[in-house]
Formats: sequence, structure tokens, C-alpha cells
Amino acid sequence: MKAFAMIKIGEVGWIEKDRPACGPNDAICKPLAVAICTSDVHTVWEGAVGPRENLVLGHEGCAEVVEVGSEVRDFKPGDRVLVPAITPDWNSLEAQAGFSMHSGGMLAGWKFSNIKDGLDSEYFHVNDADGNLAHMPEEISLIDACMLSDMVPTGFHGVELADVQFGDTVLVIGIGPVGLMSVAGAALRGASRIIAVGTRPRCVEVAKQYGADEFISYKDGPIEDQVLARTAGQGVDKIIIAGGTVDTFDSAIRSLKPGGTIGNVNYLGSGEYIRIPRAEWGVGMGHKKINGGLMPGGRLRMEKLGALVANGKLDVSPLASHVFEGWDHLPEALELMKDKPADLIKPVVILEQ
Amino acid sequence: MKAFAMIKIGEVGWIEKDRPACGPNDAICKPLAVAICTSDVHTVWEGAVGPRENLVLGHEGCAEVVEVGSEVRDFKPGDRVLVPAITPDWNSLEAQAGFSMHSGGMLAGWKFSNIKDGLDSEYFHVNDADGNLAHMPEEISLIDACMLSDMVPTGFHGVELADVQFGDTVLVIGIGPVGLMSVAGAALRGASRIIAVGTRPRCVEVAKQYGADEFISYKDGPIEDQVLARTAGQGVDKIIIAGGTVDTFDSAIRSLKPGGTIGNVNYLGSGEYIRIPRAEWGVGMGHKKINGGLMPGGRLRMEKLGALVANGKLDVSPLASHVFEGWDHLPEALELMKDKPADLIKPVVILEQ
Amino acid sequence: MKAFAMIKIGEVGWIEKDRPACGPNDAICKPLAVAICTSDVHTVWEGAVGPRENLVLGHEGCAEVVEVGSEVRDFKPGDRVLVPAITPDWNSLEAQAGFSMHSGGMLAGWKFSNIKDGLDSEYFHVNDADGNLAHMPEEISLIDACMLSDMVPTGFHGVELADVQFGDTVLVIGIGPVGLMSVAGAALRGASRIIAVGTRPRCVEVAKQYGADEFISYKDGPIEDQVLARTAGQGVDKIIIAGGTVDTFDSAIRSLKPGGTIGNVNYLGSGEYIRIPRAEWGVGMGHKKINGGLMPGGRLRMEKLGALVANGKLDVSPLASHVFEGWDHLPEALELMKDKPADLIKPVVILEQ
Amino acid sequence: MKAFAMIKIGEVGWIEKDRPACGPNDAICKPLAVAICTSDVHTVWEGAVGPRENLVLGHEGCAEVVEVGSEVRDFKPGDRVLVPAITPDWNSLEAQAGFSMHSGGMLAGWKFSNIKDGLDSEYFHVNDADGNLAHMPEEISLIDACMLSDMVPTGFHGVELADVQFGDTVLVIGIGPVGLMSVAGAALRGASRIIAVGTRPRCVEVAKQYGADEFISYKDGPIEDQVLARTAGQGVDKIIIAGGTVDTFDSAIRSLKPGGTIGNVNYLGSGEYIRIPRAEWGVGMGHKKINGGLMPGGRLRMEKLGALVANGKLDVSPLASHVFEGWDHLPEALELMKDKPADLIKPVVILEQ
Repeated sequence: MKAFAMIKIGEVGWIEKDRPACGPNDAICKPLAVAICTSDVHTVWEGAVGPRENLVLGHEGCAEVVEVGSEVRDFKPGDRVLVPAITPDWNSLEAQAGFSMHSGGMLAGWKFSNIKDGLDSEYFHVNDADGNLAHMPEEISLIDACMLSDMVPTGFHGVELADVQFGDTVLVIGIGPVGLMSVAGAALRGASRIIAVGTRPRCVEVAKQYGADEFISYKDGPIEDQVLARTAGQGVDKIIIAGGTVDTFDSAIRSLKPGGTIGNVNYLGSGEYIRIPRAEWGVGMGHKKINGGLMPGGRLRMEKLGALVANGKLDVSPLASHVFEGWDHLPEALELMKDKPADLIKPVVILEQ
Repeated sequence: MKAFAMIKIGEVGWIEKDRPACGPNDAICKPLAVAICTSDVHTVWEGAVGPRENLVLGHEGCAEVVEVGSEVRDFKPGDRVLVPAITPDWNSLEAQAGFSMHSGGMLAGWKFSNIKDGLDSEYFHVNDADGNLAHMPEEISLIDACMLSDMVPTGFHGVELADVQFGDTVLVIGIGPVGLMSVAGAALRGASRIIAVGTRPRCVEVAKQYGADEFISYKDGPIEDQVLARTAGQGVDKIIIAGGTVDTFDSAIRSLKPGGTIGNVNYLGSGEYIRIPRAEWGVGMGHKKINGGLMPGGRLRMEKLGALVANGKLDVSPLASHVFEGWDHLPEALELMKDKPADLIKPVVILEQ
Repeated sequence: MKAFAMIKIGEVGWIEKDRPACGPNDAICKPLAVAICTSDVHTVWEGAVGPRENLVLGHEGCAEVVEVGSEVRDFKPGDRVLVPAITPDWNSLEAQAGFSMHSGGMLAGWKFSNIKDGLDSEYFHVNDADGNLAHMPEEISLIDACMLSDMVPTGFHGVELADVQFGDTVLVIGIGPVGLMSVAGAALRGASRIIAVGTRPRCVEVAKQYGADEFISYKDGPIEDQVLARTAGQGVDKIIIAGGTVDTFDSAIRSLKPGGTIGNVNYLGSGEYIRIPRAEWGVGMGHKKINGGLMPGGRLRMEKLGALVANGKLDVSPLASHVFEGWDHLPEALELMKDKPADLIKPVVILEQ
Repeated sequence: MKAFAMIKIGEVGWIEKDRPACGPNDAICKPLAVAICTSDVHTVWEGAVGPRENLVLGHEGCAEVVEVGSEVRDFKPGDRVLVPAITPDWNSLEAQAGFSMHSGGMLAGWKFSNIKDGLDSEYFHVNDADGNLAHMPEEISLIDACMLSDMVPTGFHGVELADVQFGDTVLVIGIGPVGLMSVAGAALRGASRIIAVGTRPRCVEVAKQYGADEFISYKDGPIEDQVLARTAGQGVDKIIIAGGTVDTFDSAIRSLKPGGTIGNVNYLGSGEYIRIPRAEWGVGMGHKKINGGLMPGGRLRMEKLGALVANGKLDVSPLASHVFEGWDHLPEALELMKDKPADLIKPVVILEQ
């Protein structure tokens, strides 16, 4: 079968691969639409997951089931499905402990285009189909479905990690597609005031639609100075980090109230250490909690978040800023994500209606 | 001073009372606007809190501070304030354990028009002013401020007790003013689907504005039958009880998934027992959690919920269905609540601009 | 193969059955030792799980693996294993939601001697071997291993459901084997004072070893009167219900502080309703949480609780009051549990060394 | 009155001070026994809380009430009391949010010998007596009572911050008096295996009594290498940091499983940054939670932890390694803590029987 792959670090292209085999718990699917993620860029050009050869790219998309294993009960060929970026082994010790995304090892619930081939090929393999696929509601378009693989669950998990409560003042650092979903999620958890860090006009506009009240720019000085100025020196209740670098935590801790919580969902691609300022962290005793975690994947999560979209509670359509049709546009969509033009949020490629 | 009081069970009227004294931690306030609560009706005509004589009525309103005690730091005469229905003793053991509403005994955080005189008089007394008052944001009208005393915190506490999470299907039983706030709160916590039980047209209309998706009527048969029919026999994830009787829990348990949670904020005025159906409660082992609790009061809560209204995240204006101006209308407003005409949600009386 | 089975309600005996087949995720095991549970008595003589024919009995025991399916990675024939009474389908929606014991439906994680054949036969079937078996630590005897199937996890789950915290005063109702483990678990969670309800001398003696400080007898009047008298009228912080009937909750609510929590792990075999006293439940608003749940099963739980026993933190040996050797003693052990002589805690039958 | 004070950074001595005044919510107490804390050493010789002049030292001790304010209900002159190191303003916004130790600002619940004079004088002042004092149980000796001010609540809070659950493998870094209480607390929360980092023989011996199973020395190489070697490369479930420096977190993160939690209660006296290793923190997404917090103080906490000691569930007597009698020994006890001889755990000075 044909596949769009990372041939080696720094190089992508079309390759020919064998169609994956279907184990007793698995499904084989063909993608209907896929989206490009910043992680794909990190994977290919920065070697973020390490050296890989002929690894099929892609971990965001929706699909049609073409084959299922003997033990699969709830899916059959022809079913249209939501596909989460994270597909845990649900019987692992980590999943039993509540951390399915780390099943089999830290971050090892992330299999697509990391541990195994991704979605950007004629057929792709899904482990534990009953546990990891979700039936696609009719109300959800193929384009919107792609946002449910990673952007919605990752952005919303930031809100969960930050433990947003009714009336909280929340700082969202970064308003790329994940940050936008964190803004939407914070609003959907009852934040009374959302301060967003970011400046790209299209993202600012969409962030306002999702509930951001105020905007801060890195260019206007340290984030913490601006946050403290806007909060009478008190800092915010909760912070979601959806962009930046290892240095972002320094500002975040300085911007946070004692008793507050940071939820990080930003992939930290470089730097040896995250640095936590000792004094502002209360000399170790300020109760400023630091959480960071990979999105929960799997079927239930897809069903729950899918219901938000299907029932009109969450409109993800503003995220898909660039939509293409046809396999041929996959390389172009990836290049677009690499170049990040000012008006880009997410590129989506529709492969089949 | 003049005061509108419960003279005895079944009788209300205007009385003359001494202006309350101000202890070192206290404030004396004059009400600017007050709202009538169904509890007032229970108190007066059903003797719900027991026999009382010449008890000043009212626990919902906003006010102006006229005097503060020697230890009060953050309020001074002339300040306009939000007043919570529940005014805990914050240094009590119960408050230290996280249950300030039960400071000094079960439900004893509820003092106004219960343990001491309420708001419906020229001046009223607030214990622990720094801990229990909140500065009224300029963006909040007197009418809306009254909704923050009890309706918003009670309705939202139902959502907290039911532990609504992203994507949950939520059943809200009762769409009076508290139930409406539970609907609004469930939507603000990320429910994907809200099924409401209630039929009064004005309430249904407002519930839709707040995010209710579907409506069920008691008149169409047992709630649980309708809920199970609408959820493929699965039941809902979470239930907020904001109306009904002790018998409502029977239906609720039958409508709930294993692992689900009930949050009750309905005052149960009569009946010896709440009955939990044994088999449907999983013979004791179904993990269907049953929570019920009085709203949290105090300053922080008022500030947080007030910020939601002040920042336009929550519009409480649809609740005040009947607005009066002037002290003389207090008896009429109370009668209105007693009679509950079809178009009534909440009566508010503006006493001073 | 030979099997000891419930032939129909009210009748047990030896039957001949086919050896179960092993699916790709499964294991076939032979039991090394088994224990009898009160539930077995309910199942056989009270028809608690409904009518069953030729259902192999037993859900407590340890075993040796004799066969594994193609997908099983961590176990192989010859491995000695702990076997939990509850063996969930870990990829189910319920397990993903954190309630694996209800995988596939309320209580449906309980499969042995309920939905499928139990352990009391030459060979028995374990679904999802990697997710549900645990390697038996060498430090654990066959007899003690049997206590890890149900008694320890059930008793300890009561403590979790009651949310015992450092310094809490805890009431444990019932000091049969599950209640004894609740006493041990409450002590191991930092309770400062444990009041136990029960009178059988052997159980009282063992409860003292596990940390119970005081004892109350049903025979001395209502539990709540005795509890309130011992706690200056305040009630206890937390209650674990490990015995009694549907009526026990009435006393429990009356014995509990506002803000307190009940954790029920008692199987409620009869009665239409659990009754919650309205006034003492704070007219619906007393924050007296009511939890009840089936034990969590599966591998991680077995490993964690097994480590407590293997490392000498928990001594379960006092539970096995009656130990037999050989298959022939199975009927006798079951009869013993049915008759419950005064000195009985748990009967165990060693089948193979 | 006479007082033992920090005269300036680096100098201590006896001074004469006015007896403190008693506000309406306050109490004046005379100390019965006091203990010396490492923090006292930091305060005096390292200037840890900044420059101070004539600041009375001491924040650990028990006392007798000699005067109470007009609003105090539950204490009267002559009462013997436990005194927590942290005495919050319970009506503050921070306390209402659940973080009383930060009432009025980060760490500002710590008043004694920091914001105001400490215990080491004839009389000392307690804010909010009803909220912050606890009646001393008769079963508790003066010496043991001193351990309840800071050592027990701080060590146990580490266990709470690390969220120890049944069967967890727990690493406790540091086995000074706080670390010893963290070991005891971890055992009392149901840890199955406690690995302690520390080498002083007396502390090792006491740690074993409290439940530590294994010991690691800094001198034998990086902690993480030893921890991973002892846990089959998996790391531990939970870590309590009760000693070390800002660099300890680097080792801790490397020693922790994904989904694990760090609870820090160590005062970090120097260093600009705590450094979190990026890769081992899962590139920001490993769900390794980092918590750090000052102990909760106040009355309820003292009552709950006091009950553990009074009821014989926790023996704190091994902590008081050096006991003196009489005011004159205060300087000597402080010097002892400064010099930390090998057999020192805690010095206590009995002032009055």
C-alpha cells in the first residue's frame, strides 16, 4: 500500500509498505481525513522521537473500519470511527492505575507515528479496537472529527490538569490550536476570567470566540509582570501551559497564587531542565502544584468529547484554517505546518468523503 | 427600626425591632435589594425551621455597610456588598474541615432568618464581615446581585456535588430558579447533554437558554423510564436534584449509571426517609454516589461567582421574573412566592438605589 | 473435569464439566487453594444471583497457570498466581471511567461463580490474564493468598470509599472477615480511633489486633445512641459498613458528622429500600456522603495488596480460622460457612501444595 | 517579661520585652515546654526569613492559657493547650480556598518567630485562639506535645502531598525528625514498601521502628540509580522530600514512575532554581506531579494528630533525643541544633511541669 512517511530525520516522502496485519483485538482502518500536527514537524525535522526510518506519519484523523479481529465486539467493517492520537493498552498496570497514556512505559500510549506506523497510508492498524475507537456521530464532519484526535483532548486535558473551578481566573499560555482548546475548555469549566498569552491576529480572534477576555504579548515584557499588574499583584488561580519552552514555567510560577495549579500540555522539545524559581515557589512550600501530562486517549474520551461537538456545545470548526482534498496534498499540508504562516491554525486533508 | 418578620408560624407582618449591635468582627448593613426564596415560604407557612417569633425574614440580597467592628479590615461604611445566604464561622472545626456551611452544627452556617434575624429590615447584622461579605462589582445590578446570595451558589453547588466532567450526560431534576442555575452550571462545567425535568413554559424557555437540551415531564410517566429510553438503557452520568421530594431519589438512582453521582441541593421539607432502591443501587455496591449539601457561603465564593456575572460569563437576569420597588412591596413579593403563578421565577424588591 | 457446583438453588454437588477453552487473551488455571465466602452461601441457598444450574462455585483462591492464549505476554504455564474475585474487561467503557468492577454492566466485573464458572474445579478460566492475574510473591502462603482475592480488597475498599484520613474517628459496622479487613485498613490509613460494631469473641479479639479501640453491641441498644454517647454527641468522621442489612444505613447516618462519609461494602441481600433518615441527613443538605461499591479487582490491585502481605505490613493469617486439605473437604467447608459456628472467620481448603 | 530572642542575624540572647496585648479573638499563653527546630537555626544564622531585630524565637511547644479575648468561647485561663507552628487567619480568602497556611500571603500563616514574636518568652500571643489552639489530651506528655506543633504535621503533610495509597512503594528522602514523621505517616497510610534515604545510625534505627524497609545512602551514588536498581527499573509510586536541597528534585523525578507524585515539605533555603529534568519529566507530559507545601496548622489539625498520639497510634517519643529542664537551657538547646551531633534528633526544653 502507499504511505506518506518520514524516510529519515529531515526527509519525508511516499513509500510502499505492506498492509498491516490484524490481531485478534485489533482493527484495520482506512483514513477518511487526517490533520497535521506540530508534533509531526518535530518528529521529522527535529528528530523529537529519535531516529526513525520509513515511519508512516500522522496521528490525527478519522477513518473507516475495513477489518476487525476475532475478539472485537463493537466495530465491524464499514463503520466510520473517531481515532484518538493515544491508543492505550487498557489492561496494562499503568492504565489500571489511571494513567492509560503511559501504558507500557512513559508516553507509550502514544503509538501512531512514534512506536508504530501512523495514519497517513491506505490502511492503518489500531490496537484494541473496542477500547480505542469510537463510532463517529453523524453530526460531526470529517474535518471536525480530525480535531477530536488530539487538539480537543490535549487542550481540555490542560484544563483538567490545572483543575479549573467555577469563577477561577485562568492564564492560558499559548494560543495555537491546543491553546485555543484550552481556552475553550477553561470557559467550559466555569472560569470567570481568561487571560491568554499570544499575538497572532487570527488566533486572537478565535480565542475571543472561545472565551478569552484579555491578551498578553511576550513582546511587552515578562508575562509575570503583566499578569501581576492585571491581578492587583495576586496572580492567577490556575495556569494552562500550551506553548512556550522549558523557560515558560519560570514565568508561570511567578504568575500563580499560592494554592494554585499549573497544567502543562506543551511538548517540551529541548532544554535539559525546567527551572522552578525557589523563592516564588514558596521555598518549596507554596502549594503551587505543577502538573503536566499527555492527553488521555481511548474510546470513552472520544465518545465524551465527540458528544460535546455533536451536540453543539463546542464548535471546533474555527481550528481547521486550511483544508485540502486528496492524498496528493499531504506533503503540502505538512510543509504548511512546518512554515507556519500567520493565518495557519490547523491544516486538514480530506482523503475520501 | 422597622422590619418585615415572621410573627409566628403562618403569620407575617411589619414589626419594630432594635437595631442589631456590632461585635468586633461584625458589620451592620442596610439592604439595597432583597429577593424572596421558596425557603421563606417553608419557614413561615410550613414551620420548616421550627417555631419562631418575630424573626426578621430574608436571606437573599445586597446591601450597603453602615458600621463595622474594630477587627474588620476590608470593609467600611458606605461599601456596597454582596451578601451570601450562608455566613459561616470560619474558625470553627467544621469550616477547617472544609464544611463551613455546617460551622457550629449541621446547617448552622445558615444564620439569616433561621438562627438570627434576616435581611428584611432597615439594618441587619453580618457575622465575620471580612470573611462573609464581598465588595459588589460595579458591573452587577442590584437585581442580579440578589441572585448571587443563594440561587447561583446553590445551583452551582449541585453541579459540584454531582461532579460534572467534560462530556457528561447530566440529568437536572427541577427547573425552578435553583434548577435553572444547576442547568447553567452543568453547561459551564462541560456537560455534553443536559436533560431537564420540568414543564413550566417560562422555566423551560430559560432552561434552554442556559443549555438544557431535552425536557422530561413527570406527567409522562416515571422519570427513570424516560431517562433510560433516551439513553439506550444506560442511564445518565450525573444527576442534580434541584426539586421534588424524598421520593425523587428513587427515580434518580434508577436513572443513574454505575459509577455515577447524585448531587442534591433540594431542601427536603417532609417525609421521614429518603428511599434508595436496593437492587438498582447495586445491592450496595454499584458505586452510585449520593451527595447532598447546603451551598458554600462566605466571601471567596461570592467573589468567584460574582466575577462570573460581572465578566459576562453568566447572565442571571432571566431569573428575576418579578421586580418591585420599595419596602411596601415586600409582603406582596412574599405572597407571590407563596402562590407561585405560572410565570414566576424569582421576585425581587429594590429598596434603595 | 470434576467440579464442585451449585446444581440448582439450594443444592450443591460434584459434577463433571468440560475443561474451559482458552481465548487469545485468557489463561486456564488450576486452583492451589480456595476459600469459601459468605456470598457462596447467598448464591446457593438464597438464590442471590438468581437461578443457576451446574454453576461451578468459588471466587477466592490462588492457582497455577496451565495454559495461556496467544496474546498473553506476562504469564506462562507453571506460574503461581493470585486470583482476584473481580476480573474486569479492562477495555470496557466502565473501566476507562475508573469503574472496572462494573465493566459490561453494574457488578459485571464479578464473573466467577456468577456470570461464568468459578474456581472450584480442576481447571478454571481467567479472562484477560495479563490484566487480571498477579504473580504470587514467594513470601505469601497459599492460605494467605486466598484472603487477597476478596477479603482484603473488599475490606480495604470500604476504607477508600469512606475516605479515611489522618486522625479520623471511624466506625466499622460488622467484624466478619471483611469488617476485620476494614478495621485493619482504617488503622493503615491513619484513623486515630476505631469503634467496631460486633460481639463474636474471636472476631473481637482479632479486631483488637487489627487496631479496633472500642466495641459496640447491637444488643445494647441502637448503634447511633452508643456512638453519640461515645463521641460527645458529635458522631464519627467516617463509617465503613461491612455487615448488617438495608436498615443499617439509618443508624449510620445518625452516627455520622456533617461532612462525613459512609463507605458500604456489604452485600445487601434483601429488602426493597435502603432508608436514609431525612432530618439527620440534613434535610438533604448535610454533606453526609453515601458511597457503596464492589471491590476493585484486576492485577494492579492484587500486586499492591499482595505487597502489603508479602512485606509484612498486613498479617492476614488470623482470618483463616479453619483450614482443610484436599478436594474432598470442599463441601464441608461450604457447610461450615453456611452454619457459621461462633469461632468461624474463614474456611480455606488447600488443594495442592 | 524575659524572652530568648534573635537579636540580629547571627546573634541570639535574652532580652526584656513587653507582655503582648490580647485582642478580642486572641489568647495569651505561657509556654510549658518548647522544642528547637532546624528553622530556628536557619532564621538566626542564615537569615532565612530576612533581617529581624529582637525577634523572640520558637514555634514549637505546648502552653497554658493565661488570658483570652472577649470573643473566645472555647478556652479559658488555666487550660493546657497544643500550639501549632502555623496559626492561620481562618476568615482569609486563602483559608476559604483550602490553603489556610497561606492566609494573608504565601506562607503567612507562619507567624511565630517570623511575622511576630515566637514562643520562647514568659508569655506569647496566639491569634484566633478558638481556631488555632487545641486542648491538650491528658495522655500526652509535655515532651510529646512539642512534636505536634511542627514535626508531626509537617512530616504527615508530606505524605498527604505525595498522596500515598494502599500498597504504594514510597521513597522518603531525608530522615531527620520531619522525614521520620513522613516515614511513620507513609506507613500509616498503607505504603507496602518504604525506601528511606539517610545514614545517621540513630535516625536509621528510629526510621525502622516507624516502618522504613530499606535504606539508601547519598554516598553510594545517585539516589535515582539506587532506586531504579531496587525497583526493576520502574521507579517508585510516590516520593516525600523531607531533606536535601533544590537539587534533590532532579533525583526525585528520575526515581518516580509516570503517574507518580512528589510531596515536598523540605524548606529550601538556598539556590535560585529547582531543576526538573525535561526528558525524565516526560517532555512535560509524564504525569509526574510536583507538590510542595507548608504544613496545615490550626485547631482541627492539632486535635486530629493529637488523637493519634493520645490513643497510642503514633509514638513520637523517639524524636525527643535530648531533653532539658529549665529556661536556662534554651541557648544550649539551640546550639545543639546548630551543631547537629550524630545522635541528635530533636532537643526539647521543659519550662514548667
